[in-house]
Amino acid sequence: MFFDIKIDKKSPVYIQLKNYIKNMILRGMMASGEKLPSTREMASRLKISRNTVMCAYDFLKDDGLIYMKKGKGAFVADVKVDFQEKWNVDWSNRINNYAKKATELDIIKSEVKWEKGMISFKSIAPDDKLFDVENFKKSFLNCISREGGKILNYGYAQGYKSLIKYLLKYMENKGINTTEKDIIITNGFTEGFDLILSCLTNAGDSVICENPTHNTAIKIMKLHKLNIVGVAMDEDGINLKDLKIKLTRQKPKLSYFIPSYHNPTGIVMPPEKRTKLYNILRENNIPIVEDGFNEELRYLSDHVSPIAALSGNGNSVIYIGSFSKILFPGIRIGWILADKQLIGYIESLKRSRNIHTSFLDQAVFYDYLKEGNFEKYIKKVRRFYKDKYEKAIDFARKYIPYSKIYGEGGLHIFIEVYGIDSRKLLNRCCKRGVIFTPGDIFYTDGGGGNTFRLGFSRVSDEDIERGFKIIGEEIKKLKSV
Amino acid sequence: MFFDIKIDKKSPVYIQLKNYIKNMILRGMMASGEKLPSTREMASRLKISRNTVMCAYDFLKDDGLIYMKKGKGAFVADVKVDFQEKWNVDWSNRINNYAKKATELDIIKSEVKWEKGMISFKSIAPDDKLFDVENFKKSFLNCISREGGKILNYGYAQGYKSLIKYLLKYMENKGINTTEKDIIITNGFTEGFDLILSCLTNAGDSVICENPTHNTAIKIMKLHKLNIVGVAMDEDGINLKDLKIKLTRQKPKLSYFIPSYHNPTGIVMPPEKRTKLYNILRENNIPIVEDGFNEELRYLSDHVSPIAALSGNGNSVIYIGSFSKILFPGIRIGWILADKQLIGYIESLKRSRNIHTSFLDQAVFYDYLKEGNFEKYIKKVRRFYKDKYEKAIDFARKYIPYSKIYGEGGLHIFIEVYGIDSRKLLNRCCKRGVIFTPGDIFYTDGGGGNTFRLGFSRVSDEDIERGFKIIGEEIKKLKSV
Repeated sequence: MFFDIKIDKKSPVYIQLKNYIKNMILRGMMASGEKLPSTREMASRLKISRNTVMCAYDFLKDDGLIYMKKGKGAFVADVKVDFQEKWNVDWSNRINNYAKKATELDIIKSEVKWEKGMISFKSIAPDDKLFDVENFKKSFLNCISREGGKILNYGYAQGYKSLIKYLLKYMENKGINTTEKDIIITNGFTEGFDLILSCLTNAGDSVICENPTHNTAIKIMKLHKLNIVGVAMDEDGINLKDLKIKLTRQKPKLSYFIPSYHNPTGIVMPPEKRTKLYNILRENNIPIVEDGFNEELRYLSDHVSPIAALSGNGNSVIYIGSFSKILFPGIRIGWILADKQLIGYIESLKRSRNIHTSFLDQAVFYDYLKEGNFEKYIKKVRRFYKDKYEKAIDFARKYIPYSKIYGEGGLHIFIEVYGIDSRKLLNRCCKRGVIFTPGDIFYTDGGGGNTFRLGFSRVSDEDIERGFKIIGEEIKKLKSV
Repeated sequence: MFFDIKIDKKSPVYIQLKNYIKNMILRGMMASGEKLPSTREMASRLKISRNTVMCAYDFLKDDGLIYMKKGKGAFVADVKVDFQEKWNVDWSNRINNYAKKATELDIIKSEVKWEKGMISFKSIAPDDKLFDVENFKKSFLNCISREGGKILNYGYAQGYKSLIKYLLKYMENKGINTTEKDIIITNGFTEGFDLILSCLTNAGDSVICENPTHNTAIKIMKLHKLNIVGVAMDEDGINLKDLKIKLTRQKPKLSYFIPSYHNPTGIVMPPEKRTKLYNILRENNIPIVEDGFNEELRYLSDHVSPIAALSGNGNSVIYIGSFSKILFPGIRIGWILADKQLIGYIESLKRSRNIHTSFLDQAVFYDYLKEGNFEKYIKKVRRFYKDKYEKAIDFARKYIPYSKIYGEGGLHIFIEVYGIDSRKLLNRCCKRGVIFTPGDIFYTDGGGGNTFRLGFSRVSDEDIERGFKIIGEEIKKLKSV
């Protein structure tokens, strides 16, 4: 006994010894009342210091697992766990329809998995090699030295106050009137959208949106049992004629749009269309949820105001912001800007769901932003991604026999090829080590079977070329079948 | 113009200048086509360097807000925002019942607010002055140097793999058999419990639990429209007789218990009772949700196994763990240990709600734990809080004419005073600068009107004495009315 402890370098030795003995006691491998080797004996047996053993014994005593008899040593306490008769629950029968649906709609569980060596165009996450880690580190150290342990204690559901103030200013700088509006910090867009639907919709309500649209938004709407009314898109965004027709047929509770670098098409809706869209919804009194997705990644030279800016001092637009496709998605910080009263409701809901978003992350993020790092960073990555985007477009034109390429920038392009089934194409490409996202998951009506999205943000130029070539070859083969 | 810019030291000057001009343009205070002062002129006017001005102009150009004419300077682009007719939505009419309920149940919005100078016994958050910030900082720096920007990019819904592995081991060291079980990382207990109910219950289902119980759990159950069946408590925890009676009357979907340092009573359920409780639920085939709340804060010398340990290789117990009442609640990290298949469902749900918990926080937390810091820390805080608890008990005995004091430790004591209304008591004490949590919010059946909880974790010894004295005096006055 005690000879099979494998001491490694990952954690302190006394903890490893403590855990080893604890384990033996709890598994009933040491009887209650049994004497442990003396600290001297144990130390020499394991070739560790006697101090280490004493420390381990001390912790075991604290845990109530051993007791000391003066002059006699350490003994195992009476702690055997009374394992009870095996009782198994059939969880698959206990799960409700909501959880079943969430699992069904969880594309990560059904999609083709990336394997080493594959070229993946699935991701539109930012390239973390671009992250300005040094300044993030500085901001962390600033926060810790400024706030100490406080920043690790509970905070407010609405968010870290300085960050909220900063983002309000940031939104004002987009031309948005923030009077009587407020911001709540969320765990990214996903939580923001989920909270909004949780507050404002009931099962069976309709929501009108672009078709195609962000697949996560579709998933969340489906989980809320909403009736998704998709509106066709033209090359400059939503088709206003189709929108008007759909609105005469039903009265949606909400509308949801991605006006800039729309996911998946990459289309930027021009200012005039934004104004027209806004006015149509105003006439129908249907509030707008604007997804600020990748707005910051603008490659174009013209300024385009968010829809929320058009509403002036009105309160009808709910804006969801996030830097996740550009900066630090792993810390999960996004925000909702909306009417003050509405933010109050969302705040209570947020508190009931997870109390608040990590205060440490919010504080560090705030410090990083306020130092002007984001502005410098965005300048750098705009150039980087613009270059990548242009190369991707060039390679697509050269190698892929597309029918249409959508997108004016962003981190992906969206391709339509008449007469093919993009899932079949994916299967073929996958065998040759290339994967991408089939477009049908972005469609609200089961359409888009001949489309696919190619995310290039984390793929090297060489791999973009190699990958697109393979996709092109497989399309030709598919078409000739 | 440009004379009213107030340059401060909070952020880089070029960003302040950029934002100032941006704001003027977007507000229509500079007409499109208008010439901006030359960089030289602007620099001398504002007494800043010309480089700074050039940098600001460069950003404005990037944003499409100004354009340059060679040899002629910078001009305002055509960007005026077309503010539309004011459109206001009456959000109070758009909010659904769920959001209304969440706001109603959000006690923070209705409870007495802390004001400067008050002694507050409301909180049971840890004292952040105890936090081992230095080692946390070290762990952060370790993570960043080990993983770089990767740790700031997207991760997995289930959580940071090394942390999951560590916590599985940690649970094994509590005597829990983890075969065929798995862990998912959540944003603290609150999200964990919400996800479990979201997966396993439907509106109208019953859940059986202790009465009183954790008020946040009550809130979440109410928001899920569950029928809460509270079981009376004895001085050593749940009353098994009452439990059996309640179980003959209805068939709950789930049970929920806080066996250690029960909130709000502070009772630790003894091992024999845990076994009996487990077996009663097994006979009725009602899965158990065990809230590991403050289990780590054990002041007693005897080892007490969690209920999850009793189930051996059975899968009927879902354990929710969190260090939030001891360590770093602000980073919101908790976990669910349960049957592997069930964790799979919860994972999909979690992904649909917020993708994942901050990977940075998880990585730093893991590094902190693996270095053995937690074990050292817990030793220190156990001593600290034990001391505080004993003082609080002494002062309560001395000053408060209680009928019963509950609790064997933890971060609070729970007091019952026959014949008083604790909300009236709170009103009186509040006028004298002392606040606490009225006990009724912990009751599932509207009871507990003569109870209150006194959290002492962040109150100095002097203030505990001073505060308890005031509470005692007001009780006497109330009783003599």
